[in-house]
Amino acid sequence: MAFLGYTNDDLPNWVKKTEQFPVILYILKWVLIGTLVGGLTGIGSALFLKGLSWATDWRQMHLWIIFLLPIGGFLIGASYYYFGQDVVKGNNQLLDEITRPKKIIPLKMAPLVTIATIATHLFGGSAGREGTAVQMGGSIADQFTKIFKLDKYDRKILIITGIAAGFSSVFGTPLAGAIFGLEVYVIGRMRYEAIFPSFFTAIVANYATHTLGHEIGIHHTVYDIPIIPDMTLTNLALCVIAGIAFGLTGMLFSKANHFWGNLFKSKIKYAPFRPMIGGVVLALGIVAINYNHGLDYSSYDMKYFGLGVPTIVESFSTQMNWYDFLVKTLTTSFTLGAGFKGGEVTPLFYIGSTLGSYLSTYISLPVALLAGMGFVGVFSGATNTPMACTMMGIELFGAPAAVFIAVSCITAYMFSGHTSIYTSQIVGSPKH
Amino acid sequence: MAFLGYTNDDLPNWVKKTEQFPVILYILKWVLIGTLVGGLTGIGSALFLKGLSWATDWRQMHLWIIFLLPIGGFLIGASYYYFGQDVVKGNNQLLDEITRPKKIIPLKMAPLVTIATIATHLFGGSAGREGTAVQMGGSIADQFTKIFKLDKYDRKILIITGIAAGFSSVFGTPLAGAIFGLEVYVIGRMRYEAIFPSFFTAIVANYATHTLGHEIGIHHTVYDIPIIPDMTLTNLALCVIAGIAFGLTGMLFSKANHFWGNLFKSKIKYAPFRPMIGGVVLALGIVAINYNHGLDYSSYDMKYFGLGVPTIVESFSTQMNWYDFLVKTLTTSFTLGAGFKGGEVTPLFYIGSTLGSYLSTYISLPVALLAGMGFVGVFSGATNTPMACTMMGIELFGAPAAVFIAVSCITAYMFSGHTSIYTSQIVGSPKH
Repeated sequence: MAFLGYTNDDLPNWVKKTEQFPVILYILKWVLIGTLVGGLTGIGSALFLKGLSWATDWRQMHLWIIFLLPIGGFLIGASYYYFGQDVVKGNNQLLDEITRPKKIIPLKMAPLVTIATIATHLFGGSAGREGTAVQMGGSIADQFTKIFKLDKYDRKILIITGIAAGFSSVFGTPLAGAIFGLEVYVIGRMRYEAIFPSFFTAIVANYATHTLGHEIGIHHTVYDIPIIPDMTLTNLALCVIAGIAFGLTGMLFSKANHFWGNLFKSKIKYAPFRPMIGGVVLALGIVAINYNHGLDYSSYDMKYFGLGVPTIVESFSTQMNWYDFLVKTLTTSFTLGAGFKGGEVTPLFYIGSTLGSYLSTYISLPVALLAGMGFVGVFSGATNTPMACTMMGIELFGAPAAVFIAVSCITAYMFSGHTSIYTSQIVGSPKH
Repeated sequence: MAFLGYTNDDLPNWVKKTEQFPVILYILKWVLIGTLVGGLTGIGSALFLKGLSWATDWRQMHLWIIFLLPIGGFLIGASYYYFGQDVVKGNNQLLDEITRPKKIIPLKMAPLVTIATIATHLFGGSAGREGTAVQMGGSIADQFTKIFKLDKYDRKILIITGIAAGFSSVFGTPLAGAIFGLEVYVIGRMRYEAIFPSFFTAIVANYATHTLGHEIGIHHTVYDIPIIPDMTLTNLALCVIAGIAFGLTGMLFSKANHFWGNLFKSKIKYAPFRPMIGGVVLALGIVAINYNHGLDYSSYDMKYFGLGVPTIVESFSTQMNWYDFLVKTLTTSFTLGAGFKGGEVTPLFYIGSTLGSYLSTYISLPVALLAGMGFVGVFSGATNTPMACTMMGIELFGAPAAVFIAVSCITAYMFSGHTSIYTSQIVGSPKH
């Protein structure tokens, strides 16, 4: 463990003999780095969320912009083609650098993905935001590898802290962010080498976003599950059944993502044309969905595009349509497969909460509880991070829902197969 | 994966090709086994808690019984010496069977440890209850190895479900119990092979204890942290500092435990004499602590003996003495080291909550919050299970305290060294 030129070998013998002394150095080091990574990522997340909020509002006021989706797509594609070939792998690149380290992640990953994501949302693509925040956190973090001359072992921890910071701050869920960082790069395992740095950095990042967000008018959405029944054996069985549905849906989302990505890559050689042609199809799709409005775009319903937060909130109180989760799966996997930018997680929340909400027809649990279980359950299936998703459910919906959330997230994880939205995840322990 | 004579090879090809079919079989298998293990362990825990409650009440009404501590000690020692040589390793035996399987755990572990623990509390020893419940769960679970002809791989999962069921039901914290089962046998790692079985069984066990407990007048203690401040950078630093104190205390407890255990083993060859002589010392200790009452035993203060739940509750509202955690460390490590039976966890709660409560002199956080952080923090340090302890804090104190709890549990884990109250824990990933 080398840090700022010092190693433990430089310590006097009596210090080295005490088991806690290297730990104190380790803690001081990661408190310092975690404060820097968390602070910068948290500030970045707050600004990103502000930009996203602006883009969403502006689009809703000027819906004609959806007809420019092909141009927006081309600009995003061209930016990455000409300036971002070495950061285009995004989240997978971060996971690769944790498990198979090659080279420092360029800092330009952060501005490129931030601007491209805001553009995606401005023009009306369907995407999320965790990918953006995670890439921002990971690329900011990796810059400290050089500054602090960190070795391979510490660099792995560093990238994990960046992922944790991004996830934590963009959703306002520090503990889920920390666990996500520890859990996401290997399926079926969690190792604690980075446990303190990950939690510490995630909490600092969340604090930074919260504090700056308060100044610039950004706050996280609050979800409410007003009624939570007792966990009886019947309800336990219902949670398992709902979890199976969430897991299969998570797998469907991953497969749809890969399908569109592969299709675009195999059919269109010149990368900037992929989101351009994708933009044409998306714009036509928006018009088709709103066929009853003709070309009166100002009254178009955009519920399957953008982040979709209002629909997520609605699904906690109103039973949603059976097809909502499927349409959102299609629009998001197509948007991202075509080469637009953004995360997958908020769409996964949308898919899960609308599916859970719909399932209240058949499963006798409160609609808000099922929406909440789906919210994190489908995400758990698509990303293979059941503990992070359980913790996120607790942070968003409170401890009383925890057992319901845990069972549906873990069952979803079991049933989503070994595919994932992150192709660079490696299988540590097979699921069966 | 063989079960009831069937293996996956018996399935038709089209079924085998679908990734989810083996999972369905896996889930059905563990729903069945988990219901049995969880149900039986949960019933056992409820009866054990009833017995413990009876023993505690009876002792407080008839405090002359403390003078019989040597006789109680001899009886406990003799029971294990003559009937329980093959189950005397207790919790460590369970952990050994997970990581280095040798032979089925005899079912008699359950009644022996239950009766010996109730006797320990009846005569006035200082001990806990999780060890008892975990041994009950583990030994009940392992009986199904033969019944269902489980292979080595499944047997490991089975023992984990038993540990999870015992922990979950004795404290009323199903998610913490499930994670404890996954986390306790290896330091620094959590693997998900048993994730579904562990959570499912833990929830069933908690349900069984809760339901039966309601009938027989047993309920879990409720702790309250009324005021929780914002997580600022200052408070984050305070949590780290408190966590260091909790971790060092956890290590002290582990070392004290091993010290007394080794001393008794090396000095007294005939095992039943160990708790007998220990009982003499404990009885004299109780008299000495109460020197101001002379031999008027009916007014003796027993706050450092038994489970100590009233003191734990008190530490959430009143600042405790600086020495409370040290005296409890001494009485408990001596009681268990001498060969009395019971768990370590409730004493660890006591030690942590009184220490946290006392630290409110120096650390500007609310006394109840510090007591709660210590409650799970010292436990985290002594057992190296930071995620289970964090989840336990959430289940007992609610989600708003979660970030404070997490930081103190993880810091305590970092600072407790690689010793543990469980000598059979193996080091998966070193802490530094």
